[in-house]
Amino acid sequence: MIRACRSPTILRSSINRMALLCRQAPAAMRFVSFPASQLSISDVNPKAIDAKYAVRGKIPIRADELKEMLENSDDHNLPFDRIILANIGNPQQLDQKPLTWYRQVLCLLQYPTLLHNPPSDFPADVVERAKTLHSNVGSLGAYSHSQGAIHIRKSVAKFIEERDGLEFPANPKDIFLTSGASAAVQYLLQLFSNSPKLSYLIPIPQYPLYTATITLNNARPIGYFLDESNHWSTDPAEIRQLIKENADFDIKALVVINPGNPTGAILAREDIVEICKIAAENGIVVIADEVYQENVFKGEFISVRKVLKELQRDFPGKYDKVQLASLHSTSKGVSGECGQRGGYMELVGFKPEVQDVIFKLALINLCSVVLGQVLMELMINPPKKGDPSYELYHKETQGIHKDLMHRATQLYKSFLEMEDIECNKPMGAMYLFPSLKFTKEKYPKLFEEAEKTGAIIDEVYCIELLENTGICCVPGSGFGQKPDTYHVRTTFLPPGDEWIKRWNKFHADFVAKYTS
Amino acid sequence: MIRACRSPTILRSSINRMALLCRQAPAAMRFVSFPASQLSISDVNPKAIDAKYAVRGKIPIRADELKEMLENSDDHNLPFDRIILANIGNPQQLDQKPLTWYRQVLCLLQYPTLLHNPPSDFPADVVERAKTLHSNVGSLGAYSHSQGAIHIRKSVAKFIEERDGLEFPANPKDIFLTSGASAAVQYLLQLFSNSPKLSYLIPIPQYPLYTATITLNNARPIGYFLDESNHWSTDPAEIRQLIKENADFDIKALVVINPGNPTGAILAREDIVEICKIAAENGIVVIADEVYQENVFKGEFISVRKVLKELQRDFPGKYDKVQLASLHSTSKGVSGECGQRGGYMELVGFKPEVQDVIFKLALINLCSVVLGQVLMELMINPPKKGDPSYELYHKETQGIHKDLMHRATQLYKSFLEMEDIECNKPMGAMYLFPSLKFTKEKYPKLFEEAEKTGAIIDEVYCIELLENTGICCVPGSGFGQKPDTYHVRTTFLPPGDEWIKRWNKFHADFVAKYTS
Repeated sequence: MIRACRSPTILRSSINRMALLCRQAPAAMRFVSFPASQLSISDVNPKAIDAKYAVRGKIPIRADELKEMLENSDDHNLPFDRIILANIGNPQQLDQKPLTWYRQVLCLLQYPTLLHNPPSDFPADVVERAKTLHSNVGSLGAYSHSQGAIHIRKSVAKFIEERDGLEFPANPKDIFLTSGASAAVQYLLQLFSNSPKLSYLIPIPQYPLYTATITLNNARPIGYFLDESNHWSTDPAEIRQLIKENADFDIKALVVINPGNPTGAILAREDIVEICKIAAENGIVVIADEVYQENVFKGEFISVRKVLKELQRDFPGKYDKVQLASLHSTSKGVSGECGQRGGYMELVGFKPEVQDVIFKLALINLCSVVLGQVLMELMINPPKKGDPSYELYHKETQGIHKDLMHRATQLYKSFLEMEDIECNKPMGAMYLFPSLKFTKEKYPKLFEEAEKTGAIIDEVYCIELLENTGICCVPGSGFGQKPDTYHVRTTFLPPGDEWIKRWNKFHADFVAKYTS
Repeated sequence: MIRACRSPTILRSSINRMALLCRQAPAAMRFVSFPASQLSISDVNPKAIDAKYAVRGKIPIRADELKEMLENSDDHNLPFDRIILANIGNPQQLDQKPLTWYRQVLCLLQYPTLLHNPPSDFPADVVERAKTLHSNVGSLGAYSHSQGAIHIRKSVAKFIEERDGLEFPANPKDIFLTSGASAAVQYLLQLFSNSPKLSYLIPIPQYPLYTATITLNNARPIGYFLDESNHWSTDPAEIRQLIKENADFDIKALVVINPGNPTGAILAREDIVEICKIAAENGIVVIADEVYQENVFKGEFISVRKVLKELQRDFPGKYDKVQLASLHSTSKGVSGECGQRGGYMELVGFKPEVQDVIFKLALINLCSVVLGQVLMELMINPPKKGDPSYELYHKETQGIHKDLMHRATQLYKSFLEMEDIECNKPMGAMYLFPSLKFTKEKYPKLFEEAEKTGAIIDEVYCIELLENTGICCVPGSGFGQKPDTYHVRTTFLPPGDEWIKRWNKFHADFVAKYTS
């Protein structure tokens, strides 16, 4: 309730009183306290100050500065002539071309006049799909339903059923189209009680969106370590132990990222079973961040939803109350349409009155970008064999997939050659997360340098990598790592191998510099 | 910091301990507590429960249900055959056509292959602009800089300078491109200290985004009443009085909405001067929501920024520390591109370290939708006289402007004819906010009905309006109003006058029903 509405009498009389005061006081008098000072950092929400976001943090900001220097001066004295942005999975910033299928349909929807007279090389199914979307979704310029256009939510439900098995139907009413997966994470973390004990279980290393958003929402992350020695696998026993140790805390959700960011790991079926069990035993929500589900090179992606539904079928009554939020996005996969901000969230097992609050949060945001909604439809419902667009679509998507696998392997092999670097074989996502095996014994000068500058070992490495080669990565400390271990997260997206060679040479120099 | 990183020893030993426990315990044992119950509404953040958003609240949700009934059944028994959505300013959901200039450029950017071979009827300046944007911003599918593409921020800075006077330069570094103005409001309200005394001054009536977001961020709105008897003007004396009365509270910002939503009022220059004075005296931020700055029918829009800059020029030193955040959007004006989510925020006078925190909040959101950024550029930098696109652009924008003015006048005149309704003359924005002059003496049955159903008088009116005519509006209580006053907020966007006639007839019946 608004204060003014509660005390009408006070307010009314005060208006009159104040008007009188103003008429009596000369204008100059009101300057007495002039000027008040600006707000300072002590006025700022400490949670907003605490929140960290390494993927676009200190090192990428320095990379931006260097980029500006390169662009604005021929006489820059830098030992490289371009910046390689390997800090963020942003394929179209590099050389990845958007899929023709997506962009032809979107082009027609942006200018529907062309629907009646499309460019001559646009295949019939492109025009057909654009017409269907235009008549069902309406103008891209109108707010949609706050959960997203129902036509597209129906399509997403169908995609989920086809992925997980037709025996497990999905309901469009449980699907929220969101501006990327980040928006979904924000709704979920805004949902829960603001008790000082509020906590979330997150993997370590993790994607820093989680720690940042948890911090902003006054909650506490409890990190469970992924097992580097076993392809960054998830250890359900550790999660159980952490729940026990943190019994005083109010753990509301357990985040899994599958395929993993930054690790690229693929969750094993038996670990997903255990995660569902943990959720069922403890009544905590599973947040399944599955935005890299198309980016799998080794092993098989199985959705948490599919495993949960199978458990519900096989153990009647035991898993019915498990609450799951699964997230997907148009930013990753072979789409890489990061800037267009498409995504969805499916809710399973939430009480209707709780789901209604999530819906209200979506209402307050009006709606996700409608073009991103349409893009989601094009991603999950692509041309089928025999359709006029199929050949090109197939060729382009296969090409991107193969290319990503090739780049991942090339970078991985290069890490294997580098002294004191260990790296797990790429399995999925868009990243490698090699371990820097630098010890105090072998690299005393490096540890001195770190102490002197107040930086962590992997920060020293990433800063020098950037300043010497123009390659921008993120230190493992930005994602969380076991104490006394150091990592680098890099995307394998940059094209060619010149940058890899540059890195290789830098690494040898770095080792020489700090061991000699 | 993440818990696991702080106690490495405990964690390491607990992994081993737990692995052992699991191997010893038979699987069935772990089912003992199965299944835990779901999260209930008592687990939900009370602030999320409290947040209200009437524009898309109970009545619009009922309108959606009725719409579904109309679409899915020929035998619906409803006394109308379509829903008129007058609850939200969403022009393209009704009959407003997108501007050709925008959509032709966006069409080319979605499918840049066409840049080399554009459709034959695309004017040269469309192709030119698309090429410039393509080479400066890159693919719509890449994440941009978190504040927005610098090319577009420079363009916005130029627009602001041209609007407010070239003597007052704007800096692209102070401009944030945002997904609509809502995202900007969220950054600003997330920024401040989470003290239990945190408060914001907002106009009453207000756009419920403010109360909802303030509530979600654990703060308290302090409402200052707009003066209905004087064209919903702002009374600086009342704001001063409220600051005095709430001296115990920590008031961080003062929101002004100009042109007003839901009132349509235009702020007078002298009132803006007073607002700047209040900000300077009290060190509070001015949040100037100026998204309707193009929608002016009567009087003149003057930005808070322009007045502030003039004050800074005329009274050296007195106003230098005033902090202003001004918001603009591509959703309103004659653009009406709500679903494409473009907007910007300009910050003036913030300390760099405070502005850095806002930048971090933008970083955590990665970037606003790139297409929305481009749309902003097209809006603030349209074709100029002599450009090939100019004639059509001018014709379309003038047509929309005239049309909106015509619709506003038509609806306004209709309200003047209705018994016990009073309405201010439309000045700006997309809304009318007529007052329902229903008294207990004249409408005893209406007050009985309200008491019986627990509804507010204007809720009863809006529900009956919807159920009888299909016209969906929002009760004034959703925006805040003086006690014992009742209003309806309606857009004047729906085309034609058939719906206005329907409303007129409903109103006469309503008066007859509750007075007789």
